[in-house]
Amino acid sequence: MALKEEAVLTVDTMNSNVKEMQYAVRGPIVGLAAEVESELENGQDKPFKEVVRANIGDCHATGQHPLTFLRQVLALTVYPDLFKDPNFPEDAKLRANLVLDSCKGRSVGSYSESSGLKNVRKHIAEFIERRDGYQADMNHVFTSTGASEGIKTILHLLNCDIDGKKPGVMIPIPQYPLYSATLVEYAMPQIQYYLDEENHWSLDMAEMQRAIDEARSTCNPRAVVVINPGNPTGQVLSRQNIESIIKFAHKERLVILADEVYQHNVYDPACEFHSFKKVLTEMGPEISANVQLASFMSISKGYMGECGLRAGYFEVVNFDEKLLMQLNKCISVKLCPPVTGQAALECVVNPPREGEPSYELHEKEKAEVLDGLKAKAKLVSSTFNAIDGISCNNIQGAMYCFPQVQIPKKAIEYTQSNLYKVGVDEIKITPDEFYCFELLKKTGLCVVPGSGFKQREGTYHFRCTILPEKEKFDVVMEKFKKFHTEFLAEWQ
Amino acid sequence: MALKEEAVLTVDTMNSNVKEMQYAVRGPIVGLAAEVESELENGQDKPFKEVVRANIGDCHATGQHPLTFLRQVLALTVYPDLFKDPNFPEDAKLRANLVLDSCKGRSVGSYSESSGLKNVRKHIAEFIERRDGYQADMNHVFTSTGASEGIKTILHLLNCDIDGKKPGVMIPIPQYPLYSATLVEYAMPQIQYYLDEENHWSLDMAEMQRAIDEARSTCNPRAVVVINPGNPTGQVLSRQNIESIIKFAHKERLVILADEVYQHNVYDPACEFHSFKKVLTEMGPEISANVQLASFMSISKGYMGECGLRAGYFEVVNFDEKLLMQLNKCISVKLCPPVTGQAALECVVNPPREGEPSYELHEKEKAEVLDGLKAKAKLVSSTFNAIDGISCNNIQGAMYCFPQVQIPKKAIEYTQSNLYKVGVDEIKITPDEFYCFELLKKTGLCVVPGSGFKQREGTYHFRCTILPEKEKFDVVMEKFKKFHTEFLAEWQ
Repeated sequence: MALKEEAVLTVDTMNSNVKEMQYAVRGPIVGLAAEVESELENGQDKPFKEVVRANIGDCHATGQHPLTFLRQVLALTVYPDLFKDPNFPEDAKLRANLVLDSCKGRSVGSYSESSGLKNVRKHIAEFIERRDGYQADMNHVFTSTGASEGIKTILHLLNCDIDGKKPGVMIPIPQYPLYSATLVEYAMPQIQYYLDEENHWSLDMAEMQRAIDEARSTCNPRAVVVINPGNPTGQVLSRQNIESIIKFAHKERLVILADEVYQHNVYDPACEFHSFKKVLTEMGPEISANVQLASFMSISKGYMGECGLRAGYFEVVNFDEKLLMQLNKCISVKLCPPVTGQAALECVVNPPREGEPSYELHEKEKAEVLDGLKAKAKLVSSTFNAIDGISCNNIQGAMYCFPQVQIPKKAIEYTQSNLYKVGVDEIKITPDEFYCFELLKKTGLCVVPGSGFKQREGTYHFRCTILPEKEKFDVVMEKFKKFHTEFLAEWQ
Repeated sequence: MALKEEAVLTVDTMNSNVKEMQYAVRGPIVGLAAEVESELENGQDKPFKEVVRANIGDCHATGQHPLTFLRQVLALTVYPDLFKDPNFPEDAKLRANLVLDSCKGRSVGSYSESSGLKNVRKHIAEFIERRDGYQADMNHVFTSTGASEGIKTILHLLNCDIDGKKPGVMIPIPQYPLYSATLVEYAMPQIQYYLDEENHWSLDMAEMQRAIDEARSTCNPRAVVVINPGNPTGQVLSRQNIESIIKFAHKERLVILADEVYQHNVYDPACEFHSFKKVLTEMGPEISANVQLASFMSISKGYMGECGLRAGYFEVVNFDEKLLMQLNKCISVKLCPPVTGQAALECVVNPPREGEPSYELHEKEKAEVLDGLKAKAKLVSSTFNAIDGISCNNIQGAMYCFPQVQIPKKAIEYTQSNLYKVGVDEIKITPDEFYCFELLKKTGLCVVPGSGFKQREGTYHFRCTILPEKEKFDVVMEKFKKFHTEFLAEWQ
């Protein structure tokens, strides 16, 4: 047996920022779900037949069907022999041709420009123009490997100490853990502002002021992240709220990072999606010519749900030429985002128009997805609200709710003095983790504990997506009610 | 007109590491090539009809055709309606099914595991086993968005100060600029070791020892990067050379990063590709159980050249369980590599077998690409060597040569005291940049100046790919000879 030497790279000698980083959406709950699934497969008797994964916004994984037009265009671009196939509609061939026209050697196998294929960026700019009614410049548009990569790029650019102070970034609490994880990874201070749970998770300007004032002594606040429609909180910001945030960013000299990947997902008829770009443009030249903005979009959400293709884009506003050059250089090291993803993006920003052969089917498929989400948004929040000890804001948009749950004192104390078995490990867990782990084990419903998104001290939540099929929800929600009652009885 | 305030984010207040970073492969020469192309399009009279892009390993952009089998599998996975199409061969349907079996909801639109689809990782491990004759563990295999992303991930993990010293990484000079750019981006010290140009760009152990000894006073050397077959240098390392490097890494306690993306690209019959994994495994338990290795592979090179699909993988050796967990967490923030790319990867590691319907065509297409590259490898190096004042090692493998060019003293002095016009800018350039810019302007041949890859002080090189079609090379090489003679005459 060879002597095992101490390794060069170990958890003790690795990047400590990576070690510290947490990413709840793919955290221990996912491992536990896999464990429960394999127990089911091995015939273990449980009070449920399957795990219902409401932990991640992974649309196709939970039964949503891909859009026919988008997939036809994709098939044509990867295998152009299909242009001869009369079963493929002419508008799909037209879009596929637009993509291939921008590809060197007319192959999606060649690198695109680092910012993305010319035609795709052109059509993104036109999409933004149609949405907002204002001009967009394709040279300010950058495609990315999912929205996440774009967000990481902009945060990376902002990472600069000034006057010996680290760059702080304001993030909402609760937030999508990409932000906290990336900031930990980049060793950039987080300035946490709490969303107003009592007011539909809106942004409270006094709270934002408090957060930044407190932070100024320890860091140099440089940016504010806003997620609209909200993840994990499912709110849709009012125009007035957005205006206040923009004014605040102007006054406090902050770059706005607007995470608008759920812009197609608005369910509440009283709400409307307002893009930061549009509102900014309408706030008068003093503000519109000065406030810097990066807005992020993705094909993983909306009505298309193409998470696995990894494509998104971002538009920057008020970035000067020199900065754009540096941004271009920064992304060039990664060469380019997947060109197949860019082809799918083309279909989202340049969908079939009225009169084109795919128009009707495409509209029908789109409406089916969005109507289904709308119905489930209502079902899920009202079911939660009907349960004693759970309160849940209406889901106005996005794909999630973030209900608050009263956890009995005895259960809280139990987690403080006991470890919990997950796989072969015994780990320390929080009360909301305890609740979610038990929920998963007893009902098969997999949701993410609120602590992964952060929450006000002493409150407990979980994030539940509205993606699983309605029939599955109906079944699992019944089990949920029973679980909750029993949990309270056991720990009260 | 609105008062333009000073912006929050400018080149003066951005991440200085990003600003410092250079990435030559997509540097000013590419901008100049685009400029020359648009002048040609606008009818400007030039002594050539087109720009021949020999600056980047972008196979499909320069005329290489995609593999039929791979693209058929891709079309089937993105648009499963095609399973009904009898024109698609059964083995393509079989592979597409294997991919879809691993996809949640049987859609490439759902996220895969962060490390990649189960079946794809399983088949990668089997591919490595067939290649090396030794077991590979699919849990030590991670797919990535191109090899570049995998390399960046491992460097990121290694980024840890120990005893107040920064982590140093040994990189070859000349090298592929991904390494220098990433190390600058991560503020990790580069330990440069010079490849032995006189000995086919092999690794000279005395030189490696010099490099590490000198570096120890200022940093903590933690890893060594080896690119085999070489980029930009086109060499294939001997088994003996690899053994020496592994012993060196063991003695000096270094993790080996083996960039083996050109493992299918060996042209010299006297050479053979030896994987670091195989050689390491055969070096006795004292070494094989201890030396940590990460080996990188890509679908962008080889005979497939699918750059735009952005897929690769890496295998780690002697990484313990806790470290693997951290690695998994680290990549989970990016969710997953593009699933379409993973489907293409499946075809590379699980190609048609003898007896399957696609076998013959696939072998034929593969051989055509590799034979073509082999012929051009010979053509390109012998043409360069036939020119006075240029010397070029034989291209044993990969897709590049890195000829040395004697630049006359007068030309060197000229660059030292003059700026050069590129687009609207006047920039300071090096003698090799001057040579390459002039070459591009006068012949249409676009190659990358050696300074982008680094080279011994006082020597000048350029990197030229062997990808353009033979007919184009024949034409442009004639012009090259003429250019070189005139350049010497003008500046002698």
